[in-house]
Amino acid sequence: MTLEAFLIAGEPVTTSETFKAVDPSLGHTIDPPFAVSDESHVERACIAAAAAFEAFAEAPIETRARLLETIADEIEGIGDALIVRAMAETGLPRPRLEGERGRTTGQLRMFAAVVREGGWQDIRIDSALPDRQPLPRPDLRMIKRPLGPVAVFGASNFPLAFSVAGGDTASALAAGCPVVIKGHPAHPGLSAMVGGAIAKAVAAVGLPAGVFSLLAGPSNALGSALVLDPRIAAVGFTGSRQGGLALVELAARRPVPIPVYAEMSSVNPVILFPAALAARAEALAAGYVGSLTFSAGQLCTNPGLVFAVDGPGLARFSESAANALAAAGPATMLTPGIAKAFRTGVAKLTGSSGVTELARGAAPAGECQSQASLFTISAPDFIAQAEVREEVFGHTSLVVRCADQAELCAALAVLEGQLTVTLQIDPDDGPAARALMPLLVQKAGRLLANGWPTGVEVAPAMVHGGPFPATSDGRSTSVGWLAIDRFLRPVCYQNMPAALLPPALAGDGAGSWRLVDGHRVAA
Amino acid sequence: MTLEAFLIAGEPVTTSETFKAVDPSLGHTIDPPFAVSDESHVERACIAAAAAFEAFAEAPIETRARLLETIADEIEGIGDALIVRAMAETGLPRPRLEGERGRTTGQLRMFAAVVREGGWQDIRIDSALPDRQPLPRPDLRMIKRPLGPVAVFGASNFPLAFSVAGGDTASALAAGCPVVIKGHPAHPGLSAMVGGAIAKAVAAVGLPAGVFSLLAGPSNALGSALVLDPRIAAVGFTGSRQGGLALVELAARRPVPIPVYAEMSSVNPVILFPAALAARAEALAAGYVGSLTFSAGQLCTNPGLVFAVDGPGLARFSESAANALAAAGPATMLTPGIAKAFRTGVAKLTGSSGVTELARGAAPAGECQSQASLFTISAPDFIAQAEVREEVFGHTSLVVRCADQAELCAALAVLEGQLTVTLQIDPDDGPAARALMPLLVQKAGRLLANGWPTGVEVAPAMVHGGPFPATSDGRSTSVGWLAIDRFLRPVCYQNMPAALLPPALAGDGAGSWRLVDGHRVAA
Repeated sequence: MTLEAFLIAGEPVTTSETFKAVDPSLGHTIDPPFAVSDESHVERACIAAAAAFEAFAEAPIETRARLLETIADEIEGIGDALIVRAMAETGLPRPRLEGERGRTTGQLRMFAAVVREGGWQDIRIDSALPDRQPLPRPDLRMIKRPLGPVAVFGASNFPLAFSVAGGDTASALAAGCPVVIKGHPAHPGLSAMVGGAIAKAVAAVGLPAGVFSLLAGPSNALGSALVLDPRIAAVGFTGSRQGGLALVELAARRPVPIPVYAEMSSVNPVILFPAALAARAEALAAGYVGSLTFSAGQLCTNPGLVFAVDGPGLARFSESAANALAAAGPATMLTPGIAKAFRTGVAKLTGSSGVTELARGAAPAGECQSQASLFTISAPDFIAQAEVREEVFGHTSLVVRCADQAELCAALAVLEGQLTVTLQIDPDDGPAARALMPLLVQKAGRLLANGWPTGVEVAPAMVHGGPFPATSDGRSTSVGWLAIDRFLRPVCYQNMPAALLPPALAGDGAGSWRLVDGHRVAA
Repeated sequence: MTLEAFLIAGEPVTTSETFKAVDPSLGHTIDPPFAVSDESHVERACIAAAAAFEAFAEAPIETRARLLETIADEIEGIGDALIVRAMAETGLPRPRLEGERGRTTGQLRMFAAVVREGGWQDIRIDSALPDRQPLPRPDLRMIKRPLGPVAVFGASNFPLAFSVAGGDTASALAAGCPVVIKGHPAHPGLSAMVGGAIAKAVAAVGLPAGVFSLLAGPSNALGSALVLDPRIAAVGFTGSRQGGLALVELAARRPVPIPVYAEMSSVNPVILFPAALAARAEALAAGYVGSLTFSAGQLCTNPGLVFAVDGPGLARFSESAANALAAAGPATMLTPGIAKAFRTGVAKLTGSSGVTELARGAAPAGECQSQASLFTISAPDFIAQAEVREEVFGHTSLVVRCADQAELCAALAVLEGQLTVTLQIDPDDGPAARALMPLLVQKAGRLLANGWPTGVEVAPAMVHGGPFPATSDGRSTSVGWLAIDRFLRPVCYQNMPAALLPPALAGDGAGSWRLVDGHRVAA
């Protein structure tokens, strides 16, 4: 039997070529086989998306909100089968996946609220001034509109929250953009279940089926064809630096270049300030190792670097962290490829000059398992070698020992752009932290104090983005309310009769927050 | 004598290599010679900008607003010498340049008001929920911050409003980004005067001199070096498609790619609907030729294409337009290069299949003068030949005759992205216009009715941008309040002590419009 892994405009498609998921816990492929999409399917899905765009863009905002809510309902309606299949395809434990399902449906419902709130439209009305000298001022009205069909790439590490019905899909649909998603080949069964839920929701709210298509298959060529399709207007991606940069390059080469929002690479530095270290080195170590080893470190915000001025506090921290990490069991990684890349990355790190081991976790059993590890390096060695600053995706981290505050600052200055920077500070650390803030704010999209970078709140003020290479577009976030802005463009209407205006711009714009003649007016 | 054409961090620089402006009315170079910047000057200017960034970004918003107002005052303080020099360097008439000076200083003062209004910061505060289950919610605060030093390229056709102190510079400074501008080599004297005014204003409000530098010289290598400098965080450009695309490509090739906001190419289609044509063909023709020939058509929003269903109305329009255009005198173009490119573009148009001449204006005298022209083509020939859809910068335009509404729609569908689309409509044209709106809104950043696209209001709701190739980034505008958004990025602070927060985020954010726990709150 072939399960139809993919859907074009709501219709399941079968093909002769198939592929199977791998159960990383068991180390072998699992049934059923799934249909493999090819370039002709990409074209059909994009044609359907383009054909659906107008109707979707012009549909009432309430329809978009109900679509998002109905998707959440349909996902919940799948029940435990979703979790069971997700466990088999990802090796992630049940509580983590149940939590992620809640995050995913919560995110969809949040974007329904965002859509209804309407502030994202950024409505602006400048009244006509017919008597202005030397020339009259026309009536000008501005609204943000959807860009067009969006290509989304499912990520492996959040098989629900950053995959078929994840943040990119939710925010693109919220913006009024049809979505063509390339499901991650590591979880085709999960993708098919969630894709089916979305297709049902699209039909239930009466939108054209082309608003959503799901493609699937193990080849990179599929993703390339999707990015190159002339109907695609933007791309959302979460994954490796190499993968993200390849999409950026493809998109730039198109006859009509399009924006790519690729969330790619971050090592998430944590800075331990002296007073915090003196007061609570052991508690910091416990929190750090907990954050580092959660989900085998397969998180974009995993704390891969720790910086501190060397001394007794850092020695206590390092010893506690080493003890905690040594007790960490081996972990099943998401795919054999990720496990292999992790081993390669750790080997590269240990082969670098001045890197010494603080601890290793329990030894792994089998190709898909991996061993947590913790290393240390001096700041001069860290500064001298760019490769020790690269992300190793998984549960490994590097403690950078700095001789003094100046060396700490120098080590931070060589960092690339990051999703997060974490400060562990006590009140006495205030002046030292303040001195670093202007540098740190240029390095990251989120700065946090006395917490750990893992755990990204889905909220109005969240920024899950950051300067290159954390993302390909440091002006954006892929989580939180602001994620919708990625898929919008401003359009101005000048002296346009009301019958030709979008409904939200006709009349005085009441019902939405808006800027009228340069003054903000409440809904 | 060498006039110092350029300034690095407020200091005039002299060099042995010099260049001179050309007076396009007289057809020869004019004194004085100006210093030519080289790559070492680019580096010095960018180092100064990067060094000034922190102080500028952290300076009170009121300082930014006063900077913008002081620049406007200083420009006005130059007095008539500015206009006299501008006339000599551009061949543009005095009233046009005086109007443009008013637009430029008005724009600077508008951005001062935008800065003070503060909505661009998009402040968001999510209160901590310490008792939330299963995990507490942290305190999250978001603000938009400046990207970093911005490279601006002065345009030739608006030597004040899109040049040294033009919209790109004003909006970048408003965002808190230092500016390094490459002045357009066609007006070095004007650039030096305006650059001096900005440098004086920077000093007057007590900001570091590195906030502004002006480079100058005739070579493209200078601009390339500027875009490639690692300290530059974004680029603003108005000019040719070829020039803009070259900068986009350079920026994408950097180790750290950066956004390029290039406003490049637009033919600004005008659609004459049947009822409007029947009622007022002659008045439409007069308005059209006036818009087409203003400033010798050297405007980004020049109406280069007219579409209508063929018939008696279009015949009346074409005859009236031909008569009006035949009476247009020759015009001095901005530079010999622009005049030559215009002749080449018109020759290419006349060499295309099915293009016939409706009228030519008076014959030009001399290399810098050009002749207005008007052509017509059938919709099938228009659809078959991509080259007739390319922008010819100057006072020439093409009337596309369509057999019926379906052919009109097909001809519009092949258009590339545009800055503007204009509809000439009477009430009876409503249904036909409504049917086209979904297509038109995908083609342009501004849709206007019963006016002409030239004349871009500097206002809160203006969009002077559009899908590629109108601009390299269809999510942006280079004119109006929204232009500031191009130079900002969001930063989130999580559980950050008040002493480490930007002042606008400490406390409850009062004083600014903001989103608190998902609800908008007045200043």
